[in-house]
Amino acid sequence: MCRWLAYTGTPVLIDELLYKPANSLVVQSLHSRLGAETTNGDGVGVGWYDELPTPGVFRSTEPAWHDRNLHELAEHVRSGLVFAHIRASSGSPVQQTNCHPFRYGRWLWMHNGLISQFAELKRDLAFAVDPELYPHIQGSTDSEILFHLALTFGLHDDPPAAVARAIAFVEHVAEQHGVPYPMQGTIATTDGERLWAFRYSTEGRTRSLYRNTDVATLKLQYPDNPLLHGLSDATRIVVSEPLGDLKGAWREVPEGSCLVVEDGEEEVRPFAPMPFAMV
Amino acid sequence: MCRWLAYTGTPVLIDELLYKPANSLVVQSLHSRLGAETTNGDGVGVGWYDELPTPGVFRSTEPAWHDRNLHELAEHVRSGLVFAHIRASSGSPVQQTNCHPFRYGRWLWMHNGLISQFAELKRDLAFAVDPELYPHIQGSTDSEILFHLALTFGLHDDPPAAVARAIAFVEHVAEQHGVPYPMQGTIATTDGERLWAFRYSTEGRTRSLYRNTDVATLKLQYPDNPLLHGLSDATRIVVSEPLGDLKGAWREVPEGSCLVVEDGEEEVRPFAPMPFAMV
Amino acid sequence: MCRWLAYTGTPVLIDELLYKPANSLVVQSLHSRLGAETTNGDGVGVGWYDELPTPGVFRSTEPAWHDRNLHELAEHVRSGLVFAHIRASSGSPVQQTNCHPFRYGRWLWMHNGLISQFAELKRDLAFAVDPELYPHIQGSTDSEILFHLALTFGLHDDPPAAVARAIAFVEHVAEQHGVPYPMQGTIATTDGERLWAFRYSTEGRTRSLYRNTDVATLKLQYPDNPLLHGLSDATRIVVSEPLGDLKGAWREVPEGSCLVVEDGEEEVRPFAPMPFAMV
Amino acid sequence: MCRWLAYTGTPVLIDELLYKPANSLVVQSLHSRLGAETTNGDGVGVGWYDELPTPGVFRSTEPAWHDRNLHELAEHVRSGLVFAHIRASSGSPVQQTNCHPFRYGRWLWMHNGLISQFAELKRDLAFAVDPELYPHIQGSTDSEILFHLALTFGLHDDPPAAVARAIAFVEHVAEQHGVPYPMQGTIATTDGERLWAFRYSTEGRTRSLYRNTDVATLKLQYPDNPLLHGLSDATRIVVSEPLGDLKGAWREVPEGSCLVVEDGEEEVRPFAPMPFAMV
Repeated sequence: MCRWLAYTGTPVLIDELLYKPANSLVVQSLHSRLGAETTNGDGVGVGWYDELPTPGVFRSTEPAWHDRNLHELAEHVRSGLVFAHIRASSGSPVQQTNCHPFRYGRWLWMHNGLISQFAELKRDLAFAVDPELYPHIQGSTDSEILFHLALTFGLHDDPPAAVARAIAFVEHVAEQHGVPYPMQGTIATTDGERLWAFRYSTEGRTRSLYRNTDVATLKLQYPDNPLLHGLSDATRIVVSEPLGDLKGAWREVPEGSCLVVEDGEEEVRPFAPMPFAMV
Repeated sequence: MCRWLAYTGTPVLIDELLYKPANSLVVQSLHSRLGAETTNGDGVGVGWYDELPTPGVFRSTEPAWHDRNLHELAEHVRSGLVFAHIRASSGSPVQQTNCHPFRYGRWLWMHNGLISQFAELKRDLAFAVDPELYPHIQGSTDSEILFHLALTFGLHDDPPAAVARAIAFVEHVAEQHGVPYPMQGTIATTDGERLWAFRYSTEGRTRSLYRNTDVATLKLQYPDNPLLHGLSDATRIVVSEPLGDLKGAWREVPEGSCLVVEDGEEEVRPFAPMPFAMV
Repeated sequence: MCRWLAYTGTPVLIDELLYKPANSLVVQSLHSRLGAETTNGDGVGVGWYDELPTPGVFRSTEPAWHDRNLHELAEHVRSGLVFAHIRASSGSPVQQTNCHPFRYGRWLWMHNGLISQFAELKRDLAFAVDPELYPHIQGSTDSEILFHLALTFGLHDDPPAAVARAIAFVEHVAEQHGVPYPMQGTIATTDGERLWAFRYSTEGRTRSLYRNTDVATLKLQYPDNPLLHGLSDATRIVVSEPLGDLKGAWREVPEGSCLVVEDGEEEVRPFAPMPFAMV
Repeated sequence: MCRWLAYTGTPVLIDELLYKPANSLVVQSLHSRLGAETTNGDGVGVGWYDELPTPGVFRSTEPAWHDRNLHELAEHVRSGLVFAHIRASSGSPVQQTNCHPFRYGRWLWMHNGLISQFAELKRDLAFAVDPELYPHIQGSTDSEILFHLALTFGLHDDPPAAVARAIAFVEHVAEQHGVPYPMQGTIATTDGERLWAFRYSTEGRTRSLYRNTDVATLKLQYPDNPLLHGLSDATRIVVSEPLGDLKGAWREVPEGSCLVVEDGEEEVRPFAPMPFAMV
């Protein structure tokens, strides 16, 4: 099982997100408190936006806790929109092309979870990807195929609908193969402006997902916490598990829901697969 | 462009093939004399047979010349049937799953060359792979897809026919996409008993391929060469380019041909794509 | 904290030692039961002897659980004397030259533990290494320096005495620097014939070390266990923690002792640092 | 033999230096025109300054031409003072700690060349390093030891004098060991404000070194070249070999000289080893 973090708000050094918090993503990579696997040592990735048209992506197969280049990058790169992911492989090879986040144009995508019996379903899923997008698939994970299915089903136009259709398609293919409960996971995606996070599994028992309480409230609650002072009220963090023990700082994103962050506002909506038409 | 070597005969330390010769594969990886690219630093792989049911495969993304584990393995593992390959990527990522040789059961496969405009053709080629075999594809290279097409077209039963059909299929798909001269390369494959080597390109200008003159003749010609004395007369070496300058030791495998080595006998036959039926 | 295994006896595939046991070294690398750190993902190494003059050594910075080349090697290489080690760095960089086992001529050496405040002591320790041996130091770990100190103090002639002097020297240098309790750890070394294992720490609270109960007894106790039947009575396994839960199969090596295995006989002797003279 | 580039001037994306020029450093890594070895595939490193107290350093053992993370970093990080280095090992292991540039506080250091018979001289050189600095040595190269000798001999106070003394010390130790012509190479160092480049070898036949003609002149000469227009007149590039064929753009730094760049002014002074006193 993987761990991920999505940050949008006041530009910060990536370091502040990845290494500094008490229960930072890198600490979690060594021994996750809430994860299914205790160790997440099968790769790490960071995506970040700056003034350039395409986000930067650093992906490495080294365990997060000893990747020195990641540490250097994190100490020197500042961004107001950051995706970070640590990987525990559910079977596919540990290679750079299998590390999250995945990128397509200005979009980033990351996933904590899996498609059950993916080896059996992969062919049908891969061939449903738009032939124009197909050559862009570089690795061999379920997560990357899911991303390309979402792109195929209209991620650019209506992200929640596209993800709902992509998951419905996965469930449809799984049913044809007699695979029960195929979809599991939390997903984050962004176009560099807005952020969407999903928590859904066919079985209805999805891995954990948290968002920070709004920063204005936290500032009132913790007037002496210096970290919070630097952050604008519009800052949002979505994570697989809380980054620390600050009381009241984290709220669970409910099972079967989609969190949308746009212009500093966030909204939690119900989320479920929806009927799809093959394009 | 890659370089490869196939050896069958008297069991030797892999070292004798990979590092010791004057123009060894590792030397070639630094500056190939006959290759299209001067440097082959995008990975290396070795496959070898012993008494176990499945051949061993070591594959690494490090340049061959500084991979210490390969050197250790080569110094300690002895085999009578060895495949070795150094890679210069024609575009796909440098990752272990893209290194040759590829393995399926007892079969090994390696390739020096490429399928032109593979990104455009890949989907149609991958779709034609037997659905039972499809989940076994691990990397993203043209060479691995070609292997799985050959398996689909009957590699187990009639290797030359299967390869001829696989290449014909590639040429067929390429024609549909308007891609000229799609197939280029030399290929080696083995089931652990027999060895087949192919030299073919659609354009008729295939990369080089050599085989050793028969060992009995070489022994007569060089009565004082200690290396030759240890080798049985049935020993065969097939290589992208000669391993040294020993006069008379190497003969070119002709354009458009297939070399078969079985029970210490070798035969060169004409080779061309042949009509295929989708299974 | 690291984990290690030393095996001497009936030649086996390395696989049988590294991957097959219920609590195999690779399983321990993901979550050690007795270790100080829960994860040992900072590299792995295997050394093995065959008929060649020098043992083979495979060392990798990948976590043991996803190193495919190690798995291939383990499935194909058979040996009657094997050292294996998984690393959790106590600070020095994760690089191949810092992975155990270390080799010098026919000797192998591995260590689970550390020299306290090594950065401060390193210069004095390195300076004491025989100038002839100094250029052979390739990495930056305390364990490799300790090996070279033992070589300097006569490892070839009297291993227990040499290790006792090397540790005394470490304690002497530490005292000069005001560093308390400098030595911690279990050590294994071999010349390809005999095997020595040490358990010692200045503080007297050394990390765990186990050896198997003699195989003849185990065969009587477990007449139906097929694994045991293939092993000669002379087979010995020494490990950081037991490889499984077989009742009565493992005995602790006591604090402050040295285990010697020679010609299928083993002996446990008291071990303590001993006065040294600088050569 | 390695290749390096030092840039100071108008902040640019590192990409503009590493990948874009016709004969860029990455192109040189595949086939250097002027280098001793044709391939520089043994690692790559970049150091850059921003508003933070310490420069960032990215170092990788992958060949420069296929390191994707380096490419991402280069496309997103902008700096007005950049060091870049590609490595062809002269013997020491290919590992991150052996990649240039080396860093100490705000200082960076890189070197193209070698100390002859370094294995034999290393011990004497390493023990001359200030004991306070000694623990900071992380790798095993001659270049890093040379850096620490220069630091020991006063790099912070008078860089040309410190380098001159460090080299004199190397020559002194070499003489004691009967090693002729020990020092070879070009060196670049910076404190984040000023830049020094050295070209010196004991033999007087040092590897090549070039600097750009002043930008103002180039702008006059090439009024239509868009690349030049973005650069301030104070921009300076020092390189192992020219980055392109622009006529008049590059001038050789003479044998036995030191180039100093400070406040946009540059000066070439004679350089030779100078007497040292052990501190």
